[in-house]
Amino acid sequence: MTTPLFDTVCFIGIGLINGSLARAMRKTGLVRRLVAVDIAAESCAAALELGIVDAAGSDWATVAEADLVVIGTPVGAVLEIGRAIGPHLKPGTVVTDVGSVKMAVIRDLTPSLPEGVAFVPGHPIAGTEHSGPRAGFAELFEGRWCILTPQTGTDPQAVDKVAEAWRRVGSMVEVMDPHHHDQVLAVTSHLPHLIAYTIVGTADDLEGHLKQEVIKFSASGFRDFTRIAASDPIMWRDIFLNNREAVLEVIQRFTEDLTALQRAIRWGEGEALEKKFSETRAIRRAIIDARQA
Amino acid sequence: MTTPLFDTVCFIGIGLINGSLARAMRKTGLVRRLVAVDIAAESCAAALELGIVDAAGSDWATVAEADLVVIGTPVGAVLEIGRAIGPHLKPGTVVTDVGSVKMAVIRDLTPSLPEGVAFVPGHPIAGTEHSGPRAGFAELFEGRWCILTPQTGTDPQAVDKVAEAWRRVGSMVEVMDPHHHDQVLAVTSHLPHLIAYTIVGTADDLEGHLKQEVIKFSASGFRDFTRIAASDPIMWRDIFLNNREAVLEVIQRFTEDLTALQRAIRWGEGEALEKKFSETRAIRRAIIDARQA
Repeated sequence: MTTPLFDTVCFIGIGLINGSLARAMRKTGLVRRLVAVDIAAESCAAALELGIVDAAGSDWATVAEADLVVIGTPVGAVLEIGRAIGPHLKPGTVVTDVGSVKMAVIRDLTPSLPEGVAFVPGHPIAGTEHSGPRAGFAELFEGRWCILTPQTGTDPQAVDKVAEAWRRVGSMVEVMDPHHHDQVLAVTSHLPHLIAYTIVGTADDLEGHLKQEVIKFSASGFRDFTRIAASDPIMWRDIFLNNREAVLEVIQRFTEDLTALQRAIRWGEGEALEKKFSETRAIRRAIIDARQA
Repeated sequence: MTTPLFDTVCFIGIGLINGSLARAMRKTGLVRRLVAVDIAAESCAAALELGIVDAAGSDWATVAEADLVVIGTPVGAVLEIGRAIGPHLKPGTVVTDVGSVKMAVIRDLTPSLPEGVAFVPGHPIAGTEHSGPRAGFAELFEGRWCILTPQTGTDPQAVDKVAEAWRRVGSMVEVMDPHHHDQVLAVTSHLPHLIAYTIVGTADDLEGHLKQEVIKFSASGFRDFTRIAASDPIMWRDIFLNNREAVLEVIQRFTEDLTALQRAIRWGEGEALEKKFSETRAIRRAIIDARQA
């Protein structure tokens, strides 16, 4: 147990990420009290049953008890959440979030925050294909990066405290411009998920018999895509709608590259294929070397 | 130890798959003697050093000692291999292979096989992104499917013996028409690998700084693609060149589906996105239920 960094944390939405963060915060003793607000009664019940928070319910005014608020909902809900919690936030409270896009969250949340409340947007690069508080675990963030995208003028002490909280739960912290974050994540996360959803959807549209065989023989590559295509649909809908420009830009690049490979296959250009397939091995090695494999 | 099913097996090419099969055959005692022919001296040396075969070298005439020959090379090499081993095969020998496409292998190998030699084309749905005999392990085929695509008129006893060999190393065996095999695998394996190579290539083309960040934050989805994009380049070049029509057909389907999602993102059609992302979850559950996850 270390010294508490915050007195009371209020989680808005208690799903996989906030549910894991609650466990990790409890385990490391970095807050004294943990409460949750979630519009889904079953999530509140599960969080209480699991003992990962001390209180849970649907009352937005609960944020008044907190000196740290962590928003962990689909990013499309942030505008309304800001309007709901804004009037209840007390000066000195630090608000952060765990959303996968940052420009839209800043746009939607900032207007609702009262004077004296610091907002430190965050994004832990961690997760699984499972959803809900029961799927969480305290070790989810260990050895993973957490990106913070504070705006110029944000209280540096608030940024430092949020960064320290992530470090205490095992993460490495990187501070980044929110626009740049959205561009990087469009490549590393949003495009891969869209591609996985697409390919699994393509298989899902096959006629019945062929579809059964795709499932049966999925160990040949396909199943790796189904795991990430099993991620939460609402969360991902909101990510694509809220990082539209960056995602459309990388889809365009991807499509051009796929067309080039398609053409090489059609014209039997073996050398071009082999060259491309050899280059991609180097990236895998770099990821293994960076201990993110 | 069970009764040997074959006296001597000769592996043509001793990489990941044949190297694993050698270990599994040794472990289960299903052959008396194991030999390997590989044009790469270092693969032969490794196989001998690992003790997974009793003899290894580059002499095609070695197949004369075998009553089972297992071809485990990139499928583009099969035509030349057939010409090289054909004159040395003794009547009664069973030839099989482990290639990822079946129509092309049948086309390329059959003309070189003498009277009295049965060919039972095979494809174990198992593998890793690693290559070479050192990467192999005896348990690779346990609980995995192996597809056999014998042609009408092939000695049923030869088919039975090859099927029994795969069962003894832990696989489940499915007999299938070779053309159908190539269509199913185009969806479950060839398209996923092509997409993975493409997306990793797209990232590889980014300017230096952004590329470093893609590696750093790859845990957000991208790294799942880099694993399969690290597979053997020559093997995959040959697969695409030898299953051209089926692969081009599924690329076309995939591109149409991606374009539809791209359009939904551009026009902010949240409902369409959510519907698509929800449907794909069912396939993941089916794969888990089929114990192939």
